[in-house]
Amino acid sequence: MKKTLYTLLLAASLLPLGAAAQSITRLNPTNWWVGMKHNTVQVLVYGPQAGTLTYTVNYPGVKLVKTNTVENPNYAFLDLIIAPTAKPGQVALVGKKGAKTVTQNWELKARDNAVKAQGVTQADFIYLAMPDRFANGDPSNDKFADMADPSSDRAQPFLRHGGDLQGASQHLDYLKELGVTAVWFTPVIENNQGLTDEGGAKRSAYHGYGFTDHYTVDKRLGGNAAYKAFVQKAHGMGLKVVQDAVYNHIGNNHWFIQDLPMKSWLHQWPTYTNTSYRQQPITDPHAAQIDRRVTLDGWFVPFLPDLNQQNPYVANFLIQHALWTVENFGVDAWRIDTYMYNDQPFMNRCNAALLQEYPKIHIFGESSVTSIVDQAYYVRNKIDFPFKSNQPGGLDFVLENAMLAGLKEVGTPGATGWDNGAQRVYQALAQDAVYQDPTKLVTFIDNHDHNRFLSEVGEDVAKYKMGLTWLLTTRGIPSMYYGTEILMKNFKDPSDAEVRRDFPGGFPGDQQNKFTAAGRTEAENDAFRFVSTLANYRRTHPVLSSGQLMQYLPENGQYVYFRYADAGTVMVASNTTDKAASLPTARFSERMAGFTKARNVLTGETISDLKTLQLPAKTALVLELMK
Amino acid sequence: MKKTLYTLLLAASLLPLGAAAQSITRLNPTNWWVGMKHNTVQVLVYGPQAGTLTYTVNYPGVKLVKTNTVENPNYAFLDLIIAPTAKPGQVALVGKKGAKTVTQNWELKARDNAVKAQGVTQADFIYLAMPDRFANGDPSNDKFADMADPSSDRAQPFLRHGGDLQGASQHLDYLKELGVTAVWFTPVIENNQGLTDEGGAKRSAYHGYGFTDHYTVDKRLGGNAAYKAFVQKAHGMGLKVVQDAVYNHIGNNHWFIQDLPMKSWLHQWPTYTNTSYRQQPITDPHAAQIDRRVTLDGWFVPFLPDLNQQNPYVANFLIQHALWTVENFGVDAWRIDTYMYNDQPFMNRCNAALLQEYPKIHIFGESSVTSIVDQAYYVRNKIDFPFKSNQPGGLDFVLENAMLAGLKEVGTPGATGWDNGAQRVYQALAQDAVYQDPTKLVTFIDNHDHNRFLSEVGEDVAKYKMGLTWLLTTRGIPSMYYGTEILMKNFKDPSDAEVRRDFPGGFPGDQQNKFTAAGRTEAENDAFRFVSTLANYRRTHPVLSSGQLMQYLPENGQYVYFRYADAGTVMVASNTTDKAASLPTARFSERMAGFTKARNVLTGETISDLKTLQLPAKTALVLELMK
Repeated sequence: MKKTLYTLLLAASLLPLGAAAQSITRLNPTNWWVGMKHNTVQVLVYGPQAGTLTYTVNYPGVKLVKTNTVENPNYAFLDLIIAPTAKPGQVALVGKKGAKTVTQNWELKARDNAVKAQGVTQADFIYLAMPDRFANGDPSNDKFADMADPSSDRAQPFLRHGGDLQGASQHLDYLKELGVTAVWFTPVIENNQGLTDEGGAKRSAYHGYGFTDHYTVDKRLGGNAAYKAFVQKAHGMGLKVVQDAVYNHIGNNHWFIQDLPMKSWLHQWPTYTNTSYRQQPITDPHAAQIDRRVTLDGWFVPFLPDLNQQNPYVANFLIQHALWTVENFGVDAWRIDTYMYNDQPFMNRCNAALLQEYPKIHIFGESSVTSIVDQAYYVRNKIDFPFKSNQPGGLDFVLENAMLAGLKEVGTPGATGWDNGAQRVYQALAQDAVYQDPTKLVTFIDNHDHNRFLSEVGEDVAKYKMGLTWLLTTRGIPSMYYGTEILMKNFKDPSDAEVRRDFPGGFPGDQQNKFTAAGRTEAENDAFRFVSTLANYRRTHPVLSSGQLMQYLPENGQYVYFRYADAGTVMVASNTTDKAASLPTARFSERMAGFTKARNVLTGETISDLKTLQLPAKTALVLELMK
Repeated sequence: MKKTLYTLLLAASLLPLGAAAQSITRLNPTNWWVGMKHNTVQVLVYGPQAGTLTYTVNYPGVKLVKTNTVENPNYAFLDLIIAPTAKPGQVALVGKKGAKTVTQNWELKARDNAVKAQGVTQADFIYLAMPDRFANGDPSNDKFADMADPSSDRAQPFLRHGGDLQGASQHLDYLKELGVTAVWFTPVIENNQGLTDEGGAKRSAYHGYGFTDHYTVDKRLGGNAAYKAFVQKAHGMGLKVVQDAVYNHIGNNHWFIQDLPMKSWLHQWPTYTNTSYRQQPITDPHAAQIDRRVTLDGWFVPFLPDLNQQNPYVANFLIQHALWTVENFGVDAWRIDTYMYNDQPFMNRCNAALLQEYPKIHIFGESSVTSIVDQAYYVRNKIDFPFKSNQPGGLDFVLENAMLAGLKEVGTPGATGWDNGAQRVYQALAQDAVYQDPTKLVTFIDNHDHNRFLSEVGEDVAKYKMGLTWLLTTRGIPSMYYGTEILMKNFKDPSDAEVRRDFPGGFPGDQQNKFTAAGRTEAENDAFRFVSTLANYRRTHPVLSSGQLMQYLPENGQYVYFRYADAGTVMVASNTTDKAASLPTARFSERMAGFTKARNVLTGETISDLKTLQLPAKTALVLELMK
């Protein structure tokens, strides 16, 4: 495949100069704004022989400092400096070659005053949804005959199902009721990819991780306008929006893959080379160069070409796209896909650019690692690695792993094992000293790539509730995968489509509507109320977002921790055994002194004797302590 | 028990003043030297009403700057400053009370020029033996009727067996032949402890971890003279000696436990409190105070009172004893028992004192932890913990755990598992970025507290050889438990005595003598030769001690790493599967370029084609690469 791509590049660059009429068909970024801190913009100019033109710009406050040409004559990269004094308007980019003049306007906009880049903090509760699978608000955009994949069929697990931003927009009230404060969609950017053949099945790119045009939201989701409208509506309802960003790779149908600017735009290998998916060669001081290269520069899958972020044009392209996206759509936080596979100095540059422009934005990458040391490497940490990451947050894979493994042992003899059950969670958190700020990690118990949580815990509702209690009361910024609140279940085996089923009620013709209490079973309502009660308690009680965490060594399968602040103290006491237990509280006096009673947050009951707590089997109590 | 101790203290302090004739029965340290950097010495003076005397010292160059008295009138602590100009001699400590004068001489010695404190490095191979179980060179000192435990009986696994320093001394040639360069004994200091009752069995203190007089080597091992002679003989043969030091606790029969200087000498609890043996509360930023206290200040076992190293008199006592021991006996390195249970600021002071006096000494503590982060905490590390350890080395429990777990999977489907087999070893080493210098860690595959290595790997000689190969070729300072080289085996279950059996041939009347080739079976000789070949190769080839480590991601159950330096390159290629394999070496070109052939270190064979290596099943090849 790599050979094919390179062949395409050679084909273009070997065109005799002047054989095609010079023209400009594409400018990226598609526009910029006056007054951005990032005011040196490198505009990618694309079109037949666009790289053979000599460019001038005659616009007050905009200076063309350099025109860069590359291997492929169809590209020019114009370095523009935009003065703070420049006025919004159409900047004419004028290219000349001999008698021929090509002019293309590039818009310089005024910045709006919309709310944007608010960040997410521990005060938030993030809801992760796949827009194709959540709700279909506009059946007219389900498929387009002019796209590489013209299909849409809800009966086929791997094809698109028609969900879109308008559909999601119609259910923001549902999310508010649930206690959600931020919505994170899997990527919304155009994935004009054809069907791929994997394991004998034709698969669509409904997941969104193969961009084909960075500056276009997929029209099957509603396009740029629908995304902007979604963000505005969400903001109006007090909800934030998290953008799912992808730097590591693009779809093999991306427009610039069809005509590569230069060979080094991508990571090129003599023969196709997949990443090893291995974290260790990056942090290992004993690693071989080839192992590092395979991890970083190997391709994620054959149909997602791996961008070379050490190429300065690629780096500029990606950084500018990030800034453009936040400014244009007003999103609040930035989730970065496959974070560990990116060139880390590039990631630092990119993070710094976002944070300089939007100081409150939160950035949290996906580094699917298994060790605390490796997880720390990709965020601001307290380890003197040769490379220092500046990423504020990250997805807490280590804690997810600990919670799931621990919950599986709840109610078994393992619940009281030396390193088992709640010990796993306790021990994961006990290593927080490696992070600059562990409260900025985004915690989770499932996502679109993992088994659904309910299935992971054997469909045991007691374990399900305990896990959600931990998620919603311990340190970090909790996130939850859509449908977990209505007991959606399934394993990734036989395919990840099993954990990406449609939200019932989100699609025309659905027999059931789980967005309403009436459409849910009693068990589903119980689950929904459970999440909603805890999430709304969290939302309205700052102690769970700004309070310190103090955790006690689990003993006899009982795991006790506190969130505490001047504003109050919440005690979470988990009995992970299969027998009811009496828990003397004298040991917890450092946190309980002065409190005489408690309110059970989940039941509303008052507990008037705090000396010994009665813990039902396989249950986590959430107690608001009172004087 | 704690109550009993405190009662003893009160009994002493309530003696009517002057009721006993004042006298001095004990001075600690028992002497000091002129010209030590540590020249402010706090002399513990003990005897009836010794704390009620007024002390003077009239000796040129020795100044008594302060006499400290404490709760118990039987103690005084004299702060002396010894000038570099002082002459060796007997310093008279003169105590007066009214007309009564008590004089006790305290010797100031000249320092000898003996070799001492050489340190151990990666160039060494440490042999850990329990002196009571290794060899009995002097049956006349097996037991003493005047000791708290007057018994000795080789038929009883928990009683003393009579091994001693003279016995060990007779087998130094054996250790030299094996390729050992340093001997580490479990503690040799007097353990005049009675038998303890554990699990229904009477147990002696043959392990040595319950000191009863810091300044006396146990006379059943030969006493101070025998230890000094042992060190001198070892040094004469080019062997080093590692001292096993214990700061955390002492035996409950220690002389000062009989008459505690003050209540705060020990960690006192209202009722007996054992340590939790839990590492997490020390490093956990979310830990409760009580959990930290239980870990640190709880007692290791009921008969080993826990010293309070925050008490400055205790701290001085222990630090001076460390310096005295190195200076007096000339030992080369310092292994510290139960390191993580000690007050860490105290440990830093103690380490600093040793390193100031003996810059080349190596210090490596026993912190039996399960996580890399916790292991790093107790050595010089690259993590910005609130507390910074200055310990140069430590025992590498994390790597031991990884090696044993990985070896168990050798030859099974787990050998090629994502995180299994050799991956465990690879992944443990891949986190070395947390240490200031991982090569200073002391590596091991078994010790006196663990199952014997051969039993851990199911008595599979192939796994045994692979594990020893890793131990003797990867980074770190290797150590091995006595008897592993002659296939001694056993599990700790039913008791740790099972892994502490006598070395056959070390004791009078032994039917077999495994110290000689003739006394060993063919299998034992094969094992001995294996260790000896590797250890002697290591000893004579600096690349294994000063070379860098480069390790490659294990693939298909094959784990390849290199030690390399200007002096040469050694390749270790382990096939952990149960099938012979051909291993193409193109991937390793970063380390193999320029080499055309290799010598198999274990067989002596020459391999003339390096393009593809033939790896037998469950085998690690050690190849010296040649141009």
